[in-house]
Amino acid sequence: MESPPGLTVVAENEDRIVASAKMGPNRPGRGAHVATASFMVDPDQQGLGAGRALGEYMVQWARDEGYHAIQFNAVVESNTAAVHLWQSLGFAILATVPEAFDHSALGLVGLHVMYLPLRQSE
Amino acid sequence: MESPPGLTVVAENEDRIVASAKMGPNRPGRGAHVATASFMVDPDQQGLGAGRALGEYMVQWARDEGYHAIQFNAVVESNTAAVHLWQSLGFAILATVPEAFDHSALGLVGLHVMYLPLRQSE
Repeated sequence: MESPPGLTVVAENEDRIVASAKMGPNRPGRGAHVATASFMVDPDQQGLGAGRALGEYMVQWARDEGYHAIQFNAVVESNTAAVHLWQSLGFAILATVPEAFDHSALGLVGLHVMYLPLRQSE
Repeated sequence: MESPPGLTVVAENEDRIVASAKMGPNRPGRGAHVATASFMVDPDQQGLGAGRALGEYMVQWARDEGYHAIQFNAVVESNTAAVHLWQSLGFAILATVPEAFDHSALGLVGLHVMYLPLRQSE
């Protein structure tokens, strides 16, 4: 669970929790105007929109809280459903850290740093 | 202070601590084969080599511990001394997150993600 100013939320399907997200500042202090988040979806409930619902919620939350941008630090590149979801919400891949994740089936795969600006610089 | 397997070290100049570094895995679990570190140098002692000494120590430590690579997540782009130091040790800038650091004098500046591979992929 995130402490304020962060937040943890869940998605339900017929009273069952099927996904969760936690969100808050990506860095303390002088980096706290950039938000980050992490997401978990029940493997049995993937493809039903829970991740998208939480992702859309998180982007709106970050806008409402006045964050300048959102940075995801570690999107597993082989998780194409997640990568495409974030791209559909406007995120770009800033970089891919090579072989930074030891996937249980695929071995070493890259981690994307993904980024969504929320407002123009002043 | 870092907990094992991480480590915190200091640099001394005539019995005075002039810089410190902490190092360890960048991520838990399946990302723990990539190391990270952060460094602080006494502003009165900059330019005397303490940062370089700790940086070189850290790279050797990561090699000795068997890490595959080192990732620095947030190198302030306006800190050209640090950027050049890491480049001189072989680090590359993978990406720059725009306006991610609120510099006390310069306002919003970017944060570099910097990366040094330590061994060939298998």
